[in-house]
Amino acid sequence: MSDQSDSPSLWGGRFNEATDSFVQRFTASVSFDQRMAEQDIRGSVAHARMLAAADILSADELKSIEDGLATVQNEINSSTFPWSVEREDVHMNIEARLTALIGDAGKKLHTGRSRNDQVATDIRLYLRDAIDAIAAELTRLQQGLIELASNHAATVMPGFTHLQGAQPVTFGHHMLAWNEMLERDYSRLMDCRARMNQCPLGAAALAGTTFPINREQTAAELEFTQPTRNSLDSVSDRDFAIEFTAASALILTHLSRMSEELVLWTSAQFQFVDLPDRFCTGSSIMPQKKNPDVPELVRGKTGRVNGHLVALLTLMKGQPLAYNKDNQEDKEPLFDCIDTVLDCLRAFADMVPHVTPRKEVLREAAKAGFATATDLADYLVRKGLPFRDAHEVVGKAVAEGVRQELDLADMSLSTLQSFSALIEADVFEVLTVEGSVAARDHLGGTAPAQVRVAAANAAKALEAR
Amino acid sequence: MSDQSDSPSLWGGRFNEATDSFVQRFTASVSFDQRMAEQDIRGSVAHARMLAAADILSADELKSIEDGLATVQNEINSSTFPWSVEREDVHMNIEARLTALIGDAGKKLHTGRSRNDQVATDIRLYLRDAIDAIAAELTRLQQGLIELASNHAATVMPGFTHLQGAQPVTFGHHMLAWNEMLERDYSRLMDCRARMNQCPLGAAALAGTTFPINREQTAAELEFTQPTRNSLDSVSDRDFAIEFTAASALILTHLSRMSEELVLWTSAQFQFVDLPDRFCTGSSIMPQKKNPDVPELVRGKTGRVNGHLVALLTLMKGQPLAYNKDNQEDKEPLFDCIDTVLDCLRAFADMVPHVTPRKEVLREAAKAGFATATDLADYLVRKGLPFRDAHEVVGKAVAEGVRQELDLADMSLSTLQSFSALIEADVFEVLTVEGSVAARDHLGGTAPAQVRVAAANAAKALEAR
Amino acid sequence: MSDQSDSPSLWGGRFNEATDSFVQRFTASVSFDQRMAEQDIRGSVAHARMLAAADILSADELKSIEDGLATVQNEINSSTFPWSVEREDVHMNIEARLTALIGDAGKKLHTGRSRNDQVATDIRLYLRDAIDAIAAELTRLQQGLIELASNHAATVMPGFTHLQGAQPVTFGHHMLAWNEMLERDYSRLMDCRARMNQCPLGAAALAGTTFPINREQTAAELEFTQPTRNSLDSVSDRDFAIEFTAASALILTHLSRMSEELVLWTSAQFQFVDLPDRFCTGSSIMPQKKNPDVPELVRGKTGRVNGHLVALLTLMKGQPLAYNKDNQEDKEPLFDCIDTVLDCLRAFADMVPHVTPRKEVLREAAKAGFATATDLADYLVRKGLPFRDAHEVVGKAVAEGVRQELDLADMSLSTLQSFSALIEADVFEVLTVEGSVAARDHLGGTAPAQVRVAAANAAKALEAR
Amino acid sequence: MSDQSDSPSLWGGRFNEATDSFVQRFTASVSFDQRMAEQDIRGSVAHARMLAAADILSADELKSIEDGLATVQNEINSSTFPWSVEREDVHMNIEARLTALIGDAGKKLHTGRSRNDQVATDIRLYLRDAIDAIAAELTRLQQGLIELASNHAATVMPGFTHLQGAQPVTFGHHMLAWNEMLERDYSRLMDCRARMNQCPLGAAALAGTTFPINREQTAAELEFTQPTRNSLDSVSDRDFAIEFTAASALILTHLSRMSEELVLWTSAQFQFVDLPDRFCTGSSIMPQKKNPDVPELVRGKTGRVNGHLVALLTLMKGQPLAYNKDNQEDKEPLFDCIDTVLDCLRAFADMVPHVTPRKEVLREAAKAGFATATDLADYLVRKGLPFRDAHEVVGKAVAEGVRQELDLADMSLSTLQSFSALIEADVFEVLTVEGSVAARDHLGGTAPAQVRVAAANAAKALEAR
Repeated sequence: MSDQSDSPSLWGGRFNEATDSFVQRFTASVSFDQRMAEQDIRGSVAHARMLAAADILSADELKSIEDGLATVQNEINSSTFPWSVEREDVHMNIEARLTALIGDAGKKLHTGRSRNDQVATDIRLYLRDAIDAIAAELTRLQQGLIELASNHAATVMPGFTHLQGAQPVTFGHHMLAWNEMLERDYSRLMDCRARMNQCPLGAAALAGTTFPINREQTAAELEFTQPTRNSLDSVSDRDFAIEFTAASALILTHLSRMSEELVLWTSAQFQFVDLPDRFCTGSSIMPQKKNPDVPELVRGKTGRVNGHLVALLTLMKGQPLAYNKDNQEDKEPLFDCIDTVLDCLRAFADMVPHVTPRKEVLREAAKAGFATATDLADYLVRKGLPFRDAHEVVGKAVAEGVRQELDLADMSLSTLQSFSALIEADVFEVLTVEGSVAARDHLGGTAPAQVRVAAANAAKALEAR
Repeated sequence: MSDQSDSPSLWGGRFNEATDSFVQRFTASVSFDQRMAEQDIRGSVAHARMLAAADILSADELKSIEDGLATVQNEINSSTFPWSVEREDVHMNIEARLTALIGDAGKKLHTGRSRNDQVATDIRLYLRDAIDAIAAELTRLQQGLIELASNHAATVMPGFTHLQGAQPVTFGHHMLAWNEMLERDYSRLMDCRARMNQCPLGAAALAGTTFPINREQTAAELEFTQPTRNSLDSVSDRDFAIEFTAASALILTHLSRMSEELVLWTSAQFQFVDLPDRFCTGSSIMPQKKNPDVPELVRGKTGRVNGHLVALLTLMKGQPLAYNKDNQEDKEPLFDCIDTVLDCLRAFADMVPHVTPRKEVLREAAKAGFATATDLADYLVRKGLPFRDAHEVVGKAVAEGVRQELDLADMSLSTLQSFSALIEADVFEVLTVEGSVAARDHLGGTAPAQVRVAAANAAKALEAR
Repeated sequence: MSDQSDSPSLWGGRFNEATDSFVQRFTASVSFDQRMAEQDIRGSVAHARMLAAADILSADELKSIEDGLATVQNEINSSTFPWSVEREDVHMNIEARLTALIGDAGKKLHTGRSRNDQVATDIRLYLRDAIDAIAAELTRLQQGLIELASNHAATVMPGFTHLQGAQPVTFGHHMLAWNEMLERDYSRLMDCRARMNQCPLGAAALAGTTFPINREQTAAELEFTQPTRNSLDSVSDRDFAIEFTAASALILTHLSRMSEELVLWTSAQFQFVDLPDRFCTGSSIMPQKKNPDVPELVRGKTGRVNGHLVALLTLMKGQPLAYNKDNQEDKEPLFDCIDTVLDCLRAFADMVPHVTPRKEVLREAAKAGFATATDLADYLVRKGLPFRDAHEVVGKAVAEGVRQELDLADMSLSTLQSFSALIEADVFEVLTVEGSVAARDHLGGTAPAQVRVAAANAAKALEAR
Repeated sequence: MSDQSDSPSLWGGRFNEATDSFVQRFTASVSFDQRMAEQDIRGSVAHARMLAAADILSADELKSIEDGLATVQNEINSSTFPWSVEREDVHMNIEARLTALIGDAGKKLHTGRSRNDQVATDIRLYLRDAIDAIAAELTRLQQGLIELASNHAATVMPGFTHLQGAQPVTFGHHMLAWNEMLERDYSRLMDCRARMNQCPLGAAALAGTTFPINREQTAAELEFTQPTRNSLDSVSDRDFAIEFTAASALILTHLSRMSEELVLWTSAQFQFVDLPDRFCTGSSIMPQKKNPDVPELVRGKTGRVNGHLVALLTLMKGQPLAYNKDNQEDKEPLFDCIDTVLDCLRAFADMVPHVTPRKEVLREAAKAGFATATDLADYLVRKGLPFRDAHEVVGKAVAEGVRQELDLADMSLSTLQSFSALIEADVFEVLTVEGSVAARDHLGGTAPAQVRVAAANAAKALEAR
């Protein structure tokens, strides 16, 4: 921060003493809101053009402001901009610098607006850009998943409930389950984007302004779909930050579930998949370690995003209208949420295409644990037994299998028949893992044929974005 | 709970010992999931009809099941249904009772489904009904607000930032700011409803089923827009509960802000509005007290809903696919969230039409605190002073006013001119509160004319729902 | 709820209209605060005795109140008490019933107190009882863990970091790690109990009372260590609820970690331990399933307690002094937190002694994955190589082992020597899992000798409670 | 970050490919954990001294390490240290630099320890320092409050419940209520400090080490009260971070309540206190504004700390033992929590002594709203009426007063007597605000005499720290 303490405060006329220097640092936001500089300049240009169109600024003044702001942007890009904590925030820093560069026209820029509508506009512009970047990474990750699913539409693996082997599924089906979560995430982000894409500029401090402003013009210039409808609400509303953070918490929750599975699957006990070394790290003491750091870290970052959501909800609770200083606390959680979601999606989008399922291990695991018991029950139902009775019969067969350490497919026909006279030689067809997955051949089922169709449909949905 | 402990467990074939009785109570969900009984029966009827259409059930069996379930529903309605904690949950209780009533056909009902897709279907049906009820209360509250806004489009009150008087606004404008929050809430609920309105039935335990089911049929019968696309995801997904709870947290956050203002406005220091006695309570010790209990309690309930959101996010974090017992914990937070949102909206919808602004108090408050200082700055800008210089001039005038305890409108023309030679006699027009609000006459501004248009538009939007 | 709507409201003198009936239900707390009836009566008896000692009540009046309250307690115990939602809460219900039973003396009981200090006292009494019950279950669980640790002080298992096999440890050592978490939990509960064990009675509504009360007497009678020091704080403070809930969140976090391990350990991939059937449940569709429901459900309940913590923190944020109606929302989260912690601890205390480690599986797993690589590095250090160089050497040996699918202990001496000339025949002693654990023979280390000492010390600590 | 990518990775022997560069940045912690450099060096010195005492390092090696680490510390202090993201974290950066400076002895420093116990030690040391700094600011704030309380022991103000005037209290009494909250905060911090003040060094990766280490020595050298008791727990435990953050959430909750009151009290409607200009800021558009930014911002920061608590609880939920990469996410929330608490306490400690109550406004407000109604009820009780009847009588008097806009003290004796024949001329003594506060003359009551004693006791408690 450069020192500009000799410069007059921008709101000091009414004040008898200078702000305490610790208070100045404590209440300043420039250290974190300067990342919205580009958006702030974009908004100021739009505002100035509208003021000129309304004859509030002259053509020369507009030109001077546009040139001055371009200079400011260059200074920021080249890290020569003299940021100052005495100027409180990104808005005051830029306006003061502009005035230093171009004189009186700079002092006219704030006509018909306030920092309250200005910051509301800046955050929305920033968040809109961020959502677009996140959506792109999300799409890239989904592409990787869908390709993996296509390649492994027939790779059999155990499906789990309660982390106990339940029924065989295919690896491709599992990857498409992950994709479904992300598909909803994308849809939520788009809803959030559409709802927030309204322009608060013109709300001024809270009540609107006495100047003949044209809010449709600034909204259009900044590519918002329309101006906001109520000035008090415009400067008080932080719903978009909360809605985005809630959507982010679900994204991270989904990534945490995938991470948990990757951590399990790369353990010595599972060995279901291989992860390339470049997504893992080692140990400072144990030379043999290869740790799945990326999914672990992503799983850990779930807490961070949940925390930001709580921070923002707590922040807004019980705030009277309109703007209160509390609201300055909206930015750091929002920015960190954006960074975290982007980084985690990028890490996953990079990593997922290189997840390699170990087919033989998966197939062996799928066979274990009486995984086709349900198939046997269904078989009995087709032979005429009511499902609930069939379930009971198979339960007894399994209990016997546990005692004898013998899987159903490895029992003799006569042993099987001792549980139900309905069982015949054709039973062994339904007891294979391949038969089991192939039989679940309906919309949403795990049969390879269904997985291939589902993957193709999912790919089409991405293309349509 | 009636005792049915002699009845065989529905999953006991494989088990060697009975569940520990404390464990039974600890893991049972029937005490809270029985509130989904109607949805469970609706889902079972749809499933049975589909099984019949697919020739898995005979027409007689279907008839028997439909009649049996109707009997069960009647028993539940008349509180004669023998709920049993040994039956674990609403599904097993109803199925067991059905089988007791109709025999073997009852045992066939579970063909081609599992409790995992059954409960996923039930919750979605329940939540969909709840969203519709909530949307209705939300609309009723908005109607009240819009009418209040229309009636007070020109009632002047102080607009606050930092709880300091900022600029005059109108009471109607303030009510419409509240309405904007709720308008977004409605829109979020509708997005949530659309996204969750897919039918998981047919996902069975996690992999689909070997029976030739018709998922489009059950989806249509239950008025879902389509079947879900992936069976693993269908039984693992609780996004809808989280998304709904996040939307609810925003609703309560908004109500907490309105509550805070009502509590402030009914205090002896503000006296901005009157609340009817029937929405207040008294004190056991202080005979004079009339406390704004309803808004206070609603404000307090914000924590509850935020807490449920955290509960659900924590619940789902890091869960491997597919269903885990953890998920049973989704229901209580969701149900309590629904109840809370419904009750709070109802209380507000009842109360808001009876909030009576005290016009004289509001007008006096609006005049105090140099509320038209911005108008004076704008006046100077129109006379040719750059805004930033005008701001400085008015700041000095206010400082002088603070010293003399004299508002701007009460200063003499010569005093005002001592701050700027640009000031002329017409300045007093812009210093009145009526002049101030009328001057903010653009889309979203607080001018009475704008408030009337905005209220009319808002009313139209409600009608279009 | 019985109907007592004809009875006069206890605060109605100032009111012109009756409370709206929905508002009455919405604001009433009797449905959940009646569980503090016993504490309320205890507090009233203490208060009445103090009033009598101060000559504010006569001896006869005291006798009458004591008898009346005993009758009330009996009515409650036998479920014949006429709870009424019109009476709002447990306090008014009991006082009204007392007055109905004994007449004027009942009307005198509220002298010198208010519901504000009354409820603050009741909750503290209730929570103190709850903490004592929780501490007892915690101790029982710790006893089970310590016994298990003693029995398996030398049972070797793999120690994990990043869910990758790291170094061999003993099962007993692992159980004592669990015990350490609970030891801290106990200590936190005791700190919380000590801090909250002060009596707010006498704070009255917020300012104290004009009667010559003796706060030391009521504090002593109710076994508090002292009266609270400030009346405003006494009725506003809910720190104890938050502190207790935070301590509970840590308890559940610990149980969630144990649960996660139990779920992993009972999976087909791990098979590290057996859980008795009575702590598991089955599936409605898959006859072979035996699911570890208890640890799964406990893990899921973590979210619930975290949520209650957030609810209470959100509740208290920004509340001005002293009592506000918001505070009524403190009870449900607190009560549910108490119930949840008690149930989860009970389930674990019942289950843990029956967790049976599968020694052979554990030993085989401990040997896999180059678990003694660190031992080899340490060996080289003892031969004179700097640790960081030794780490590098062993890293290369492991890489070779991965390529050849050969563990370090299975390599020939000459192969090992190809990585470092310092390696001699004695290396094989340090490469066994038994050698590895025995070598970590210092305070806190995993050597069986250390585990036995640690278990004995832990048992002594429990006895000293 | 300087580039050291040519340097060999410290765990690379086993790895076939370099870490992906994005992954390297994503998983590195050096950008935020470098703030523990001093603690890391302190811990390394203690570890090296112990290794030397155990003859694992020579005296020369120890000397070399101590000198090298002193050089490293100097480089860090003078910002010449070559931090490198390739070195991952603060530990590896320092060790690598040490080895570059002193050669082989540097490679020996890691003997008998791991980053897992090293980082656990560093965080505890860092947090212990932070707690001490926080406790000092807390004490300073309490001193300011107690002095303010002493100065205003007899300054009458309205006491509120439900933000409705309830009974007169004194300003000093209110300040002491704030002090009580902070007193509990201090006590919680001390409990947390005592519980965490154990040394994990020697736990190594998770199982302890094969070297003959002396854990008592390192614990004592680092001023811990003792070594931790279990190596697995030592590297897995993050309770201290959660407990500290929970204690911090209560501190901020308390500050948020004080902030809310300061914001209310400085509003135009209350005008209860003055805040110096240097703790306030102005507006970019409204020249008259003087906003209470410091309390508003502190109130807003409550969300941030609540969020960090949720982040940490979510982080630890369901983690299997021992160390997982997730845990790297513990530091940023913890550090930000420390910074936030310190800054907010400092801001309050600076500001509170300059809060100036406006005595006349407070007294007038205290008189309004029938504030002495309870005193009248108590008066009637002393004349023999049961409290509940007295409450009813006064309620009617108040209702009449509301109708006539006449306070109780302003009614004629005959009017008052129309409500109860027990009322006599002496009633007017109890109806003054001074009489009302003076009458609450018991431990914890608001009588000026009690406030003076309480302030003196509170001051003594601070001195005894």
